[in-house]
Amino acid sequence: MRIVVIHGANLNRLGRREPEVYGTATLADVDAAIQREAQTLGITVNTVQHSGEGAIVDAIAAAAESADGIVINPGAYSHYSYAIRDAVAGAGIPAVEVHLSNTAARESFRAQSVVAPVCVGVVAGFGANSYCLALRALAAALSRKTP
Amino acid sequence: MRIVVIHGANLNRLGRREPEVYGTATLADVDAAIQREAQTLGITVNTVQHSGEGAIVDAIAAAAESADGIVINPGAYSHYSYAIRDAVAGAGIPAVEVHLSNTAARESFRAQSVVAPVCVGVVAGFGANSYCLALRALAAALSRKTP
Amino acid sequence: MRIVVIHGANLNRLGRREPEVYGTATLADVDAAIQREAQTLGITVNTVQHSGEGAIVDAIAAAAESADGIVINPGAYSHYSYAIRDAVAGAGIPAVEVHLSNTAARESFRAQSVVAPVCVGVVAGFGANSYCLALRALAAALSRKTP
Amino acid sequence: MRIVVIHGANLNRLGRREPEVYGTATLADVDAAIQREAQTLGITVNTVQHSGEGAIVDAIAAAAESADGIVINPGAYSHYSYAIRDAVAGAGIPAVEVHLSNTAARESFRAQSVVAPVCVGVVAGFGANSYCLALRALAAALSRKTP
Amino acid sequence: MRIVVIHGANLNRLGRREPEVYGTATLADVDAAIQREAQTLGITVNTVQHSGEGAIVDAIAAAAESADGIVINPGAYSHYSYAIRDAVAGAGIPAVEVHLSNTAARESFRAQSVVAPVCVGVVAGFGANSYCLALRALAAALSRKTP
Amino acid sequence: MRIVVIHGANLNRLGRREPEVYGTATLADVDAAIQREAQTLGITVNTVQHSGEGAIVDAIAAAAESADGIVINPGAYSHYSYAIRDAVAGAGIPAVEVHLSNTAARESFRAQSVVAPVCVGVVAGFGANSYCLALRALAAALSRKTP
Amino acid sequence: MRIVVIHGANLNRLGRREPEVYGTATLADVDAAIQREAQTLGITVNTVQHSGEGAIVDAIAAAAESADGIVINPGAYSHYSYAIRDAVAGAGIPAVEVHLSNTAARESFRAQSVVAPVCVGVVAGFGANSYCLALRALAAALSRKTP
Amino acid sequence: MRIVVIHGANLNRLGRREPEVYGTATLADVDAAIQREAQTLGITVNTVQHSGEGAIVDAIAAAAESADGIVINPGAYSHYSYAIRDAVAGAGIPAVEVHLSNTAARESFRAQSVVAPVCVGVVAGFGANSYCLALRALAAALSRKTP
Amino acid sequence: MRIVVIHGANLNRLGRREPEVYGTATLADVDAAIQREAQTLGITVNTVQHSGEGAIVDAIAAAAESADGIVINPGAYSHYSYAIRDAVAGAGIPAVEVHLSNTAARESFRAQSVVAPVCVGVVAGFGANSYCLALRALAAALSRKTP
Amino acid sequence: MRIVVIHGANLNRLGRREPEVYGTATLADVDAAIQREAQTLGITVNTVQHSGEGAIVDAIAAAAESADGIVINPGAYSHYSYAIRDAVAGAGIPAVEVHLSNTAARESFRAQSVVAPVCVGVVAGFGANSYCLALRALAAALSRKTP
Amino acid sequence: MRIVVIHGANLNRLGRREPEVYGTATLADVDAAIQREAQTLGITVNTVQHSGEGAIVDAIAAAAESADGIVINPGAYSHYSYAIRDAVAGAGIPAVEVHLSNTAARESFRAQSVVAPVCVGVVAGFGANSYCLALRALAAALSRKTP
Amino acid sequence: MRIVVIHGANLNRLGRREPEVYGTATLADVDAAIQREAQTLGITVNTVQHSGEGAIVDAIAAAAESADGIVINPGAYSHYSYAIRDAVAGAGIPAVEVHLSNTAARESFRAQSVVAPVCVGVVAGFGANSYCLALRALAAALSRKTP
Repeated sequence: MRIVVIHGANLNRLGRREPEVYGTATLADVDAAIQREAQTLGITVNTVQHSGEGAIVDAIAAAAESADGIVINPGAYSHYSYAIRDAVAGAGIPAVEVHLSNTAARESFRAQSVVAPVCVGVVAGFGANSYCLALRALAAALSRKTP
Repeated sequence: MRIVVIHGANLNRLGRREPEVYGTATLADVDAAIQREAQTLGITVNTVQHSGEGAIVDAIAAAAESADGIVINPGAYSHYSYAIRDAVAGAGIPAVEVHLSNTAARESFRAQSVVAPVCVGVVAGFGANSYCLALRALAAALSRKTP
Repeated sequence: MRIVVIHGANLNRLGRREPEVYGTATLADVDAAIQREAQTLGITVNTVQHSGEGAIVDAIAAAAESADGIVINPGAYSHYSYAIRDAVAGAGIPAVEVHLSNTAARESFRAQSVVAPVCVGVVAGFGANSYCLALRALAAALSRKTP
Repeated sequence: MRIVVIHGANLNRLGRREPEVYGTATLADVDAAIQREAQTLGITVNTVQHSGEGAIVDAIAAAAESADGIVINPGAYSHYSYAIRDAVAGAGIPAVEVHLSNTAARESFRAQSVVAPVCVGVVAGFGANSYCLALRALAAALSRKTP
Repeated sequence: MRIVVIHGANLNRLGRREPEVYGTATLADVDAAIQREAQTLGITVNTVQHSGEGAIVDAIAAAAESADGIVINPGAYSHYSYAIRDAVAGAGIPAVEVHLSNTAARESFRAQSVVAPVCVGVVAGFGANSYCLALRALAAALSRKTP
Repeated sequence: MRIVVIHGANLNRLGRREPEVYGTATLADVDAAIQREAQTLGITVNTVQHSGEGAIVDAIAAAAESADGIVINPGAYSHYSYAIRDAVAGAGIPAVEVHLSNTAARESFRAQSVVAPVCVGVVAGFGANSYCLALRALAAALSRKTP
Repeated sequence: MRIVVIHGANLNRLGRREPEVYGTATLADVDAAIQREAQTLGITVNTVQHSGEGAIVDAIAAAAESADGIVINPGAYSHYSYAIRDAVAGAGIPAVEVHLSNTAARESFRAQSVVAPVCVGVVAGFGANSYCLALRALAAALSRKTP
Repeated sequence: MRIVVIHGANLNRLGRREPEVYGTATLADVDAAIQREAQTLGITVNTVQHSGEGAIVDAIAAAAESADGIVINPGAYSHYSYAIRDAVAGAGIPAVEVHLSNTAARESFRAQSVVAPVCVGVVAGFGANSYCLALRALAAALSRKTP
Repeated sequence: MRIVVIHGANLNRLGRREPEVYGTATLADVDAAIQREAQTLGITVNTVQHSGEGAIVDAIAAAAESADGIVINPGAYSHYSYAIRDAVAGAGIPAVEVHLSNTAARESFRAQSVVAPVCVGVVAGFGANSYCLALRALAAALSRKTP
Repeated sequence: MRIVVIHGANLNRLGRREPEVYGTATLADVDAAIQREAQTLGITVNTVQHSGEGAIVDAIAAAAESADGIVINPGAYSHYSYAIRDAVAGAGIPAVEVHLSNTAARESFRAQSVVAPVCVGVVAGFGANSYCLALRALAAALSRKTP
Repeated sequence: MRIVVIHGANLNRLGRREPEVYGTATLADVDAAIQREAQTLGITVNTVQHSGEGAIVDAIAAAAESADGIVINPGAYSHYSYAIRDAVAGAGIPAVEVHLSNTAARESFRAQSVVAPVCVGVVAGFGANSYCLALRALAAALSRKTP
Repeated sequence: MRIVVIHGANLNRLGRREPEVYGTATLADVDAAIQREAQTLGITVNTVQHSGEGAIVDAIAAAAESADGIVINPGAYSHYSYAIRDAVAGAGIPAVEVHLSNTAARESFRAQSVVAPVCVGVVAGFGANSYCLALRALAAALSRKTP
């Protein structure tokens, strides 16, 4: 089983960016946690980070050709990128939206995700662990499908 | 570590209620999965179900006195019960909101949770597994706090 | 054929509560009219009244196990109780929403029912007769289905 | 007792128009059911159908001069025709709004009727039977008034 | 100078329709007052009444060919008829919107006119006198233009 | 009969202020036209101008003690001054709102007047003539009341 | 193949009505262009124009009985006529909405069409050519369906 | 004179619940302050606390039968419970809404009370003293009524 | 302890202004009641009335220099005067907003106060007694602060 | 005559992406149809596809320097990209917006295009043919301009 | 070159009013900084402060007669004073709106200025320096106009 | 002191793009003015231009590592790019938003900036001078911080 994890805009600045909101772990720390979880689950995980909406759309399209599922943290794009929504909807493989912080507890514009309606589920608020839980959820969902 | 899982309105009808949305597993099946996960995590979990908003508020107050954390699926109350929100906010212990289905992908009134802003995080869309992931997330968060 | 009639909050105060809006007939008078209509239609009707949202949800669940249809006047809950809506949607038997008064002609918050979208129909504005017409409508709909 | 039944726009196409929503009965079938109910109730009923808002306004004005009550299915006009609302409000005789389908369960623009606030009541969702129940409701209301 | 006065829906019922709002004068009384004012002003006035939106649109088109100005009371159409708005905008002669009652003091839907933005002015709240004042205003405006 | 005409903010700049919207006549010109109309109508008219909301409120209170009616052009205050609305509502004598321009045809914030709902009527769009027509309307309304 | 072209309110005034928006071509000119395109496409086209909503509803019903497709320019009715929407939805043959002007570039009320959601497509902004392109689109769509 | 004080959801947790918002006084402390004020005012006061909406509705109905007035702090139910509003409106005795905190200064959902419109007045922001002031206000209002 | 009571626009007309809403007591009567309460409470109270927003802002600034607290009835300014809100917020002494009538039970624009969020509390609906209760509340709050 | 066709985000996945919405034709198929139409019309057409908003903005800027017109399908960017809108508005050459599907008939967020107001027209709902019709429309519009 | 600087409500309290938002500099300090900048720029600047909306309107009118430009900090009036907007629009000389704080970063009601649309530009967020920059901007704009 | 100036989408077309809105100066002209101002202020300024949201996010991240402050004109992205907002908020150095035109005076979508709330201030409406004033403001703010 092969899952692609896509980090959106500003996540490359993790650790240096508003640590009171996002913590002090860097993206490398998060990716390490993801790989540990992948090993536990016995699955292959590739992680990418892109600042641009178009690059994320392309990454989803690439995953659609090569992977079994997508874990995506679109960052702020969650709240307005219908292009990413269309990419996820058109990928033909299941996706899970994750957030480091609990977006429901922050500014009102973060209360709604336009990407979540085309995902199979959402995990938010647990820092790097959000990714690990999403991988676990997706792996379980995918193995239920495949005999 | 002691966690209380609170099931809200209509969850006692699980398995018989709109199986195309909620699946055919009963609440007993969900509770069994929860206990299996609790055992894996080495924690104590109690589960309760209530149809009434007041009973849920009371269950949260009781948990506030006796437990370390709350996993709550308020059902439809998620979308308008400020009384439950106040109860969670006032409990003084962390809570995670879970949903069996991906509420973002359903009727527009389910797009917003008034309870989520006072939780530490949200897990939605993975059926019974939503509860297991929430327990795992809460256990991890709680153990980070306690040395 | 067995139909359960569920009266919601404040209907037990009928006759004493704002008689200029709801008339002077008591709930006992309404229930008597309901039973006369039931006799005319040759069906069995049970009536219950509950002030609490949770109790109404439970009454719907009970009806789902034992009756062929539901006539429900949720009272003010009509306008915001998604828990009752979910209960009706999950009951698996047809329901008709009734109101004593013409809710469209009153305060703006009464213009919308969140329960009506999951019912088969609505009857409002005819006092106790709203219930009788709803029974008649439901009986006709149910007999069309059963050969 | 004399009641006028007014069918609004597109109801002449009943039976051929979206049968999955409105059923296969034609307007003639509905009118026959109305006349059977009128006979049962011992009242005189005239039925008319008009596609135009102005013609419906005129039909209401004519009924105001010659009838004791109005049963009206404004069709889509229900949702925006303040001219029909004004006509009903100015008629000086009671009116009941009916719908074949349960408008609350369809597109959001059908959730509100601008005509209903000036009617005595509403019946929706029971096909041709909506008209029969409305006649019965109106006949009962009118006979209560006349000694 | 030739002015056409157009009465919209339900104005033919004046005197019999909600006299507590619109008074007891009939449309004939209003038209008589209009002709008296026309005589005082030394202008020719024709009055027409139509219940239908299309007929009003046609009356405006006819006036555009034969008259110097339009006084129009669209009745309830004021609040939603963009077809009448387009007709007035396209007429190429000035129009004044009048209302018998002060629409700003009534139901909220009457607070806005979609026709007024394409008129030269509005007179509302003075009963039949609203028409007389509008004629006077229009006559003055038209004579300023013509040397 | 004694009528007070109250000009609101910025009307003292008439003639120099946006002449493409308000014309080149000064407030003195408008007041002269008002006095000519007063003479024609055989009534006494006093005119005042105030830039401040409080001064306008006081002028209305003064008129309430000394005059039979008020013609008021609140200027921009029309669109938000609930203090002026309360003053007019509490004056106990009829008021007519006037505007030089057709406010419905301008910026969207001018589409609504919060003062108009407590006036007997509105005249807008006819320049200085708006005042003359309002005086005429008010004089007619007042003489109907007094035998 | 037989297509009916329906022109809505105010289109009979084309050429004389706001030529800076709609151009100087008359409806006869537009109909001539339509017939030339029909000849090119080898299809039969009938054109009608109606000012009234009811007449347009009836024209759609007539087309439903006799034609293979509809090209409709509802004029201002596009923006609020749910009766026309229902007629198109119930016609059982494909319809294309056209506009002479680019409605998206004009007043905000023209930004939304309530008829377009039940059409197969929309063409707007190309003057008389909008009709020709719509005919071409409809003819292509219809011939794909029929072998 | 007999007044019932009704405490709504979460007020039983007073002192332990968000003390930075609600202070450290417990509900027992509040009730003691209420009884001291009752003694000062020479009136009889009973206090009850309920977490459930239905139980609060029932408490209001009971008060309607046995008391002269109601002081109610619906807690979060203030902001959405139309069932409690209906109960208060139907009680036939005056009610005063109180809040410990100044709800206007907190989250936006607390800015509106759906219960307040059917009360005689509101006191908010003074902690336990809000209840004492409300009792004083109600006692004064009630004694004015009774000779 | 020194408290300034500020009466806003139109309160000088008390007794003559809409007595069915505000009662027949004059502002002098209210001020007398205020002074009686001040005597009971053993505090010094000064009362002022201003019709203008700027004058009220200045009165608040003056109070900020000379008093310990403010009781303010901004009248209609409550609903839109952000200048008064800023003045209260910047005064550095506690303020209580009062209303004679229960603003929640009146026109919808009175449902929200923009001043209340920067006050310590609100008292509304008890006529002149609203002021007395507010003084009592403020005196209690102020004495708690000062040892 | 030289026209640039710009395909936006996700259009490179055509044929594999939600074929029930967008059909099975690939972008290569669409481009072939475009070139056939170009040949018929005797014009030069270049087609490009970009996933990123910035790349589309740059493509529009490039077209502004080298082409006579633009046909653009912004995909989901239509609904929120004011950057693309500004690019089209600033290009100085006419643009036509096209969509494969009838966006008015899909999710509500697709009902509005922020790009369309700065285009000369819109064609939507005809699959690949939308592009061909847009080319035809643009070619006709451009040749009318050039003698 | 002569510029008038107008300070609105509550700015006279600068230094004592919410220093955590507005700093500790007094209005005299700000005016001194303004005069230093005026000297640097070689222009004449007069500064005034008014608490009342009407006084500000009058100050703008006075400036219109005597100055070349206006720098205005309307304070809270920025967000709702259409009277000040009209005064600025009618002044016939350019105006710049300034704010000490960055209004976009504060309460939501401060996000919109109704005065800014009729100014030539806005400077906000730089304390007293906002005024200096605005003077510099206005001086540059004015000298570009005058040869 | 080192400041980065970031120009957003479409600014590279300055001079050729809608010169009636943005003037005829090119981006090179603006950058020259910026460098002249930098020299006057004795600071180092680097300018970049990017059409893509992702590239702008990356430029902000780069500035966060190498500069003391940011001057940013996000162009149309100002109104919806929460990704850019997050980048600015996370940069840890102060930023000033600038606009060439007075965005408050243009289309309604330009009235709100989602980036401004995380900036220290805003300068808009002064053409190239907006940048110079922003540099001056930022330089002053930065030197106040550093001793």
